[in-house]
Amino acid sequence: MNRGCVITKIQDMEKNKRTVTCGELRGKDNGKSIVLNGWVHRIREHGGISFINLRDRYGITQVVVDSNQYPQLAETAKSLRMEFCIAIKGTVRLRPDDMINNEMDTGEIEVEATEITVLSKSEVLPFMIDEVNKDGTPVIPNEDLRLKYRYLDLRTKRMQHHLALRSKVTLATRNFLYEKGFYELETPTFIKSTPEGARDYLVPSRLYPGKFYALPQSPQLYKQILMVSGFDKYFQIARCYRDEDARGDRQPEFTQIDMEMSFVERDDVLDLTEGLMQHIFKETMNVTLPEHFPRIAYDDAIELYGTDKPELRFEMKMQDGDFLSDIGSFQAFKDAVKEGGIKALVVPGVAEAYSRKKIEELEATAKIYKAKGLAWMKVTGNPDAPMLEGGISKFFEGKASEICNKLGAKPGDLLLFVADSKRKVACTALGACRTKLGKDLNLCDPDKWAFAWIVDFPMFEWNEEENKWDTAHHMFTMPQYKYHETLESDPGSVKGDLYDLVLNGYELASGSIRIHDPELQKRIFKIVGFDEAEGQKKFGFLTEAFKYGAPPHGGIAPGLDRLIMLMCKENSIHDVIAFPKNSFAISPMDECPSTVDQKQLDELHLKITE
Amino acid sequence: MNRGCVITKIQDMEKNKRTVTCGELRGKDNGKSIVLNGWVHRIREHGGISFINLRDRYGITQVVVDSNQYPQLAETAKSLRMEFCIAIKGTVRLRPDDMINNEMDTGEIEVEATEITVLSKSEVLPFMIDEVNKDGTPVIPNEDLRLKYRYLDLRTKRMQHHLALRSKVTLATRNFLYEKGFYELETPTFIKSTPEGARDYLVPSRLYPGKFYALPQSPQLYKQILMVSGFDKYFQIARCYRDEDARGDRQPEFTQIDMEMSFVERDDVLDLTEGLMQHIFKETMNVTLPEHFPRIAYDDAIELYGTDKPELRFEMKMQDGDFLSDIGSFQAFKDAVKEGGIKALVVPGVAEAYSRKKIEELEATAKIYKAKGLAWMKVTGNPDAPMLEGGISKFFEGKASEICNKLGAKPGDLLLFVADSKRKVACTALGACRTKLGKDLNLCDPDKWAFAWIVDFPMFEWNEEENKWDTAHHMFTMPQYKYHETLESDPGSVKGDLYDLVLNGYELASGSIRIHDPELQKRIFKIVGFDEAEGQKKFGFLTEAFKYGAPPHGGIAPGLDRLIMLMCKENSIHDVIAFPKNSFAISPMDECPSTVDQKQLDELHLKITE
Repeated sequence: MNRGCVITKIQDMEKNKRTVTCGELRGKDNGKSIVLNGWVHRIREHGGISFINLRDRYGITQVVVDSNQYPQLAETAKSLRMEFCIAIKGTVRLRPDDMINNEMDTGEIEVEATEITVLSKSEVLPFMIDEVNKDGTPVIPNEDLRLKYRYLDLRTKRMQHHLALRSKVTLATRNFLYEKGFYELETPTFIKSTPEGARDYLVPSRLYPGKFYALPQSPQLYKQILMVSGFDKYFQIARCYRDEDARGDRQPEFTQIDMEMSFVERDDVLDLTEGLMQHIFKETMNVTLPEHFPRIAYDDAIELYGTDKPELRFEMKMQDGDFLSDIGSFQAFKDAVKEGGIKALVVPGVAEAYSRKKIEELEATAKIYKAKGLAWMKVTGNPDAPMLEGGISKFFEGKASEICNKLGAKPGDLLLFVADSKRKVACTALGACRTKLGKDLNLCDPDKWAFAWIVDFPMFEWNEEENKWDTAHHMFTMPQYKYHETLESDPGSVKGDLYDLVLNGYELASGSIRIHDPELQKRIFKIVGFDEAEGQKKFGFLTEAFKYGAPPHGGIAPGLDRLIMLMCKENSIHDVIAFPKNSFAISPMDECPSTVDQKQLDELHLKITE
Repeated sequence: MNRGCVITKIQDMEKNKRTVTCGELRGKDNGKSIVLNGWVHRIREHGGISFINLRDRYGITQVVVDSNQYPQLAETAKSLRMEFCIAIKGTVRLRPDDMINNEMDTGEIEVEATEITVLSKSEVLPFMIDEVNKDGTPVIPNEDLRLKYRYLDLRTKRMQHHLALRSKVTLATRNFLYEKGFYELETPTFIKSTPEGARDYLVPSRLYPGKFYALPQSPQLYKQILMVSGFDKYFQIARCYRDEDARGDRQPEFTQIDMEMSFVERDDVLDLTEGLMQHIFKETMNVTLPEHFPRIAYDDAIELYGTDKPELRFEMKMQDGDFLSDIGSFQAFKDAVKEGGIKALVVPGVAEAYSRKKIEELEATAKIYKAKGLAWMKVTGNPDAPMLEGGISKFFEGKASEICNKLGAKPGDLLLFVADSKRKVACTALGACRTKLGKDLNLCDPDKWAFAWIVDFPMFEWNEEENKWDTAHHMFTMPQYKYHETLESDPGSVKGDLYDLVLNGYELASGSIRIHDPELQKRIFKIVGFDEAEGQKKFGFLTEAFKYGAPPHGGIAPGLDRLIMLMCKENSIHDVIAFPKNSFAISPMDECPSTVDQKQLDELHLKITE
């Protein structure tokens, strides 16, 4: 592409190296001779003067080229296009008072150019950097285009901010954990394949045809072995790999802040993690988090929010509606309550706003979570004499005051109910409606950070298909001490020493105190019917390690991608990873995965089938 | 295994949690009630008192159990074995004056135990932790045994030190680079396969049968794209993967401190790296490195040391011996000098110590580097009238003074020569002898840190087999500015903007200023006969990125494993990696690589051939 008179010979950087960045000049620098390096962000001409907004990582500086004074330079300036990478030599001068731009850090000054050197040119851009809509929000091109030209997308203010924040968060994390006596230790990427749950990614071994390394789904087994090794406090900002079906913002590889500690109990891990989050938020965003995060038992979370990742930026707890089976004539409630239960949700002030159609949308949500239906009534009348209308109100004639009283509802409120012969279905289905309402009604303050711990998870859950007990999380979780005697006799009531950290409705971290006793580990294997030979083959090296004086230990692993996503108020982790795969696990930029040379396959002794 | 009366029920950590570590008690703590957690390092009985050395990451504390005072506790103490993990409750007391152990940080005190709880037992150990030879050096079991029981090996003082240092070095690295304005950014592990030189490890894609991701040999292309993205200063402590044949201490995965900067020239990268090394050595070992490291041109390094990774802890430079072809009658010298040259090395004071056998060993080394032979003479006589004896001395009768004068040799010195029609062969072969002599004669002070830069590498080297030019390093290296006009006309004389950092004879880092201009990149591809279509297929996304205003940039990547190895004065990177593979790329602990389930292969649409 011919760009006219611009010289594009490689320039000797020694002669063109910046003396300042585009973000640092201020009024006090008036008169200084400087060199800037950066990208042409915007360029416009006005009255024989070219105005170049020059951008680098640090900011934007306005450069002016006066065609009267420097006619030849003005020619060069005219040939510049957006995103040319250039060096500017010039002199700092104060802007006239009426031209001061308080929105720019460098808005007091401009640079009068005396020399322009093109370091490299740009072709016409597939999209403009930092284009904004009329309302000031950024124009965001479609994702595959952004990922194909990721180097341009990453130049935007938004992506520069997100990755800078990510960098700062990892620094804050490391400084906090080092301060607490943690070592950062690297565990291997090439490990033994021990698939449990998700699939392992495999790496064929060329030296041992037919054999494979696996990439870790997490450093779990290795960090436990580091505890057996006496390292006491370990962390790693670790890349993890899970071969799942492509969906939403899932990534084949993701990053977690992986931690493990010896000689601790649950609250040590919780306190440490709270301290870490407080430090991260304070250091990187100057946000002060509360000293302690609420700790909610799993059973309570289900009853109150219908989920173990509740959105707590708004209250609107679910309530027990079992009393309704006694006072009304609604048969579905009477049936449900025998084995299961009735959950009730008061949605304040939306009775009028919620048409039948909108309620049907909510019902559709409830049905995704296996509810048979969503019952509803609207409260009308006045506070002293409330009335119920619509939905199932006909089954509760004359009971309006009693119901409103019990549920704390008042005229204008919408009442929602799910009843089910399985209490958990009633909880989760109505909980899903609660979550949806939170979004639909904008109940979530974007500047609020609602952390909470979910604790006391069940250790086992009943697998109806296989008619046996499964571990609810992984098999290395310690059952809470008080249940050790009754593991076998009453697995259903056993609570694990497990904890999840939730933030604004997302699971941010999951952790547990681990089993460190080979005998107890065998009991767990036995309860869930995990074949001992299979266990030996897969996890033998861990149980073997436990035979040599394993310390009590536990840990947790906050997801870094999700943490940064929430901190950046984004909806997808794609927007906080430098080079993510798209939703189909493909990188549009380098087009991987791709075919490889036959020679590579031959060396690996592999053949593609089908 | 029955261990007698020891209770092994899982203990409630709340009741047994340490209040202090095993490294912190001092005389001032006398009288305190404390709880310790740790491992039984040593245990002995003496006059009815059991002495337990309890160890954790922080140190060792002596615990005493008096059978007269606590007969039942003494029974428990007797049942303890090495590496049992225990909790001790007790009282700190001062040791009697004659029992103070100044070699232990906690040597002023001991803990009088009042309660012992076994947290977990240990079977008989495959090797003892921190066993020492009679001379005080550690007993180091064979590597496969150490790697199989890595969790025990990692408990040794040596390995605890090495991994703690590694952790500290990465912290120091990060703090230094953050301070300098670098962002730590993560590049993907799943990338496109672009094998050049070493083989890529491949990861089969299940979603796209027949397609593969590759694991990065380095983040090279992606860090360059981060520069195109405007991030300006990037680093990452990055895991890299190379599928090489198993040899020495090579690892399938290794770690490098990967850095890249925009708008810089060579010396900016060198200065930064020097600052980094100074900071690391000061912060972690309190060693002050010189402000600048010597910068040696590649050609000089070859002439003086015969290698681009010279061991500089001792001088003993090679000298030019071409003058010998004129003054003697040794035909091999006369032949060699026509096209090649003669290199000479004066080895001070070893004339007597070096028997013919030892010289033959040196010759064998020279021959590995393609020398036809190693010529030698011994200087005898006295300083005023030196004489030459043995070897090729008969060809230089009457020339002893002249030769000694020219080479700065004196009686007692051994003179070594390699002559070859290829000058580089003479240099490298005699240089290898120099390196071997450094080791054999203990010329390398283990407390010395001899850093140096090797610069001005040739850009291209002649490939005799294929009769064409190759790039000496990689194809993205910028040729030095002054050669840009003569790239095609005289490739052999072109120097690249390349630099290697060497430490004590090892290449510690390699870097370069990169090409950022697509046209120049095409010229390089053309000179080395790299197919443009092939280039487009493999690196198209990088050259495409360069079309949108790529900044001048360069970087470097010190190898973390090797740096730590040298700092720990070890000979193998295996000893500074938590879980390395052995020399056959196998992990004896978890036995990977391993076979996988047929189901896993089927899902990947892969079949093993042969």
